[in-house]
Amino acid sequence: MDFIGANILSVSQFERADIDRVFGVADTMGPYARREKVTRVLEGAILGNMFLEPSTRTRLSFGAAFNLLGGMVRETVGITASAMAKGESLYDTARVLSGYSDIICMRHPQAGSVAEFAAASRVPVINGGDGANEHPTQALLDLYTIRKELAGKGRALDDFRIAMIGDLKHGRTVHSLCKLLCLFEKVQLTFISPPELAMPDAVVEQLRAAGHQVTVTDQLEASIAHVDIVYSTRIQEERFASQEEANLYRGRFRLNREIFTRHCEPNTVIMHPLPRDSRAEANELDTDLNEHPSLAIFRQTDNGLLVRMALFAMLLGVEGDVDKYARPVRWHSRRTPI
Amino acid sequence: MDFIGANILSVSQFERADIDRVFGVADTMGPYARREKVTRVLEGAILGNMFLEPSTRTRLSFGAAFNLLGGMVRETVGITASAMAKGESLYDTARVLSGYSDIICMRHPQAGSVAEFAAASRVPVINGGDGANEHPTQALLDLYTIRKELAGKGRALDDFRIAMIGDLKHGRTVHSLCKLLCLFEKVQLTFISPPELAMPDAVVEQLRAAGHQVTVTDQLEASIAHVDIVYSTRIQEERFASQEEANLYRGRFRLNREIFTRHCEPNTVIMHPLPRDSRAEANELDTDLNEHPSLAIFRQTDNGLLVRMALFAMLLGVEGDVDKYARPVRWHSRRTPI
Amino acid sequence: MDFIGANILSVSQFERADIDRVFGVADTMGPYARREKVTRVLEGAILGNMFLEPSTRTRLSFGAAFNLLGGMVRETVGITASAMAKGESLYDTARVLSGYSDIICMRHPQAGSVAEFAAASRVPVINGGDGANEHPTQALLDLYTIRKELAGKGRALDDFRIAMIGDLKHGRTVHSLCKLLCLFEKVQLTFISPPELAMPDAVVEQLRAAGHQVTVTDQLEASIAHVDIVYSTRIQEERFASQEEANLYRGRFRLNREIFTRHCEPNTVIMHPLPRDSRAEANELDTDLNEHPSLAIFRQTDNGLLVRMALFAMLLGVEGDVDKYARPVRWHSRRTPI
Repeated sequence: MDFIGANILSVSQFERADIDRVFGVADTMGPYARREKVTRVLEGAILGNMFLEPSTRTRLSFGAAFNLLGGMVRETVGITASAMAKGESLYDTARVLSGYSDIICMRHPQAGSVAEFAAASRVPVINGGDGANEHPTQALLDLYTIRKELAGKGRALDDFRIAMIGDLKHGRTVHSLCKLLCLFEKVQLTFISPPELAMPDAVVEQLRAAGHQVTVTDQLEASIAHVDIVYSTRIQEERFASQEEANLYRGRFRLNREIFTRHCEPNTVIMHPLPRDSRAEANELDTDLNEHPSLAIFRQTDNGLLVRMALFAMLLGVEGDVDKYARPVRWHSRRTPI
Repeated sequence: MDFIGANILSVSQFERADIDRVFGVADTMGPYARREKVTRVLEGAILGNMFLEPSTRTRLSFGAAFNLLGGMVRETVGITASAMAKGESLYDTARVLSGYSDIICMRHPQAGSVAEFAAASRVPVINGGDGANEHPTQALLDLYTIRKELAGKGRALDDFRIAMIGDLKHGRTVHSLCKLLCLFEKVQLTFISPPELAMPDAVVEQLRAAGHQVTVTDQLEASIAHVDIVYSTRIQEERFASQEEANLYRGRFRLNREIFTRHCEPNTVIMHPLPRDSRAEANELDTDLNEHPSLAIFRQTDNGLLVRMALFAMLLGVEGDVDKYARPVRWHSRRTPI
Repeated sequence: MDFIGANILSVSQFERADIDRVFGVADTMGPYARREKVTRVLEGAILGNMFLEPSTRTRLSFGAAFNLLGGMVRETVGITASAMAKGESLYDTARVLSGYSDIICMRHPQAGSVAEFAAASRVPVINGGDGANEHPTQALLDLYTIRKELAGKGRALDDFRIAMIGDLKHGRTVHSLCKLLCLFEKVQLTFISPPELAMPDAVVEQLRAAGHQVTVTDQLEASIAHVDIVYSTRIQEERFASQEEANLYRGRFRLNREIFTRHCEPNTVIMHPLPRDSRAEANELDTDLNEHPSLAIFRQTDNGLLVRMALFAMLLGVEGDVDKYARPVRWHSRRTPI
């Protein structure tokens, strides 16, 4: 695809070469994200950060990524603060706001609304999550993290093993990630969930059609023994018929230090699309793993910054100029390197 | 007036020469608003963007205008987020906040409150709308748009014809615009509304005293036949005695492609102070005109950026230095030129 | 203490030499706060301004201070807008957000929460107020103001007289300020309050142990006659058994122009930790003193900017480079010099 001026609305719009290009640009963003160098490549540019549904993590990540390229951010949070509350159409809102911005990120509670907004916008639009539909940059940062973690082990996206755990039926994140994995080769996937929360058949079929090996199971311990990545997700207890039934499954799908140490290969990578509920009754990914070097969940959010910086630079056509407008800085920070 | 350090509180403070100067500066802002060039003339300056009443369009427009001159924006949205909710006086708030900002924009639900705030502020204050009272930058951007659209037709503000349509009794926008038009010569105005929603007599008298020709009517089709500008506004149905009565008028004051094509001169300009309600039951300016080249409603909001940039530069005394701190940029954007 | 990379969580962490260093750096920030010069020393750096409890003054002050050093600000206002509302732990929030920021300011309704957050953060954290516990930058700006006002009279922090008035039992501000005063010598303190709202014994004992002279009284007029500073605070009427009892005290602890003129030395400095309630029934510091040169309450908030700029520069290790990245600006503003 041609990135300049494009919208990012769905993972379905990417071919493999597109992914490779985004990740290649993301790889160059580290020194800027760690502020070893600062760049003014987006000086004078404005991001319209439109979050019509509450979000802290994604909103701040997009905003920080734009700032790190030298751009400024104008922001709206919540539907009530918006002119849309007065009955204005998405078309009008898009025509107006795109006159105030060089690029727009939008989160909206309704599926399809961001695409409708993008059709009327005069500047590129990135989907920051439209209801149950898509959240493409989350899938990209997950895949980028997998690639980076595998590289640390001398492996690549074309031949690796991943186990996904939890409520695979409703998780927007794992569905999008699986779509992206169809662009690669020889992935072995193990879907671990209660049968009622299994990965939808359509996703499984798509993966098999792509030549991948898929195993579906409800056994946690045995299934995480020989994988490179364990991708944990939240058990959505509110979907169960009763609290008792939810409790039945919950114990089997909780990953903690003891289970990890006993069953997994030592350098198995642990991922999770945050937020995780750390209260005792949920705790699907136990806090006793917080200091474990295999825990990649905060490397995931750090990588999100790199991927979003790459997308901004590519959509605005400046990815080749980032270094040109850069200078090194003397700087003290105890921030852990990304 | 002397713009440096001044407040912008009301359209009544302007003389004709002031308007000409603001518009002259606004004319120079295009390359920066389109990011063909970036300027740092307001580097290190801070806009306090105080919106104590929800607003997206105006708030973002002020913020973006300041960013485009190189300045930064600190923002407050909603009265509950404000220290004023704790019983602090406007005086105290103004004294404190003006220590954090180089200039302040304020929207406040109460008429007169922004002037009270400005009296205590140590930095210039722009009225971003104080209840039913004033919203001077909206009137300026409307007038600037009329001037620009007329120029495209070889006409000028001193000799043109405009029809205003809808609820002319309650519309803050049209009242302020009429006040500004009194500074010019030979304007022919046609006010089209149901008699119950007619333009207030005081406004009509003021226009006639300025030498303008004013026609008051309730006939839409015949009255839009020979004008340069059609300025549509919302029929505020909640003011009518009954839904049936509102419906009686609504059909006659709806502008759509068919009426426009049949009755208006082909290059008549269509304006509207957004937001418009695009739902079927309102729709005073039909969406079937969205792609029509005469529809200037999004050029209006684009122009708002230029006018606000001009005001910021003039109040802070840097309008002559914008180019001095500028550099060209290599840039790709599909943003429609303003 | 070593400021680089440190957290600012409590006034208890400071030794006298630390205070002197912060104030020395704050003294150099004036030209930047008045925008006589602009600096880019924090270009490319991001402040995460996390206000999980509403605040305008403190939030804007931190944000403006960071902007004035050339940095950018990403912001969250209100707990409902935060991922924490979904049951995420402070640990997770801190790990994630510290990847998006170079430094974080946090206000949180719960005592101790900011310290918990800071323990997990990968970047320095400044406590912007954690419930009834601490608000260390407020105490620093109060002390900095006292030092500056005394200097104008040829006095110093090691030998001065201060009267604190009002609800001294519950005021977080006066408790913290007293802790800081223990680092200095020969301070004479007079605590003026109804007995029920007296300064806690622990604070009084700490001051006496530091060698200070402390007087406790419920007589306003006689006690403000021979002091350098009068520090007024709000009578928190909601803590009294009845409205009648509150009214009994209120008249005696109200400072107005007549009482000030009759009882105080002419150049006695008047301070107050804003906001003050200016409604007639409260009005503990009368608005008839608004134009009095001794009224230092807006110099306090102005000084807050300088102190926060100093802390940002020191925690990020750039206080020696501010001038190096500076340039003078041509600039017009009617802002009163800080």
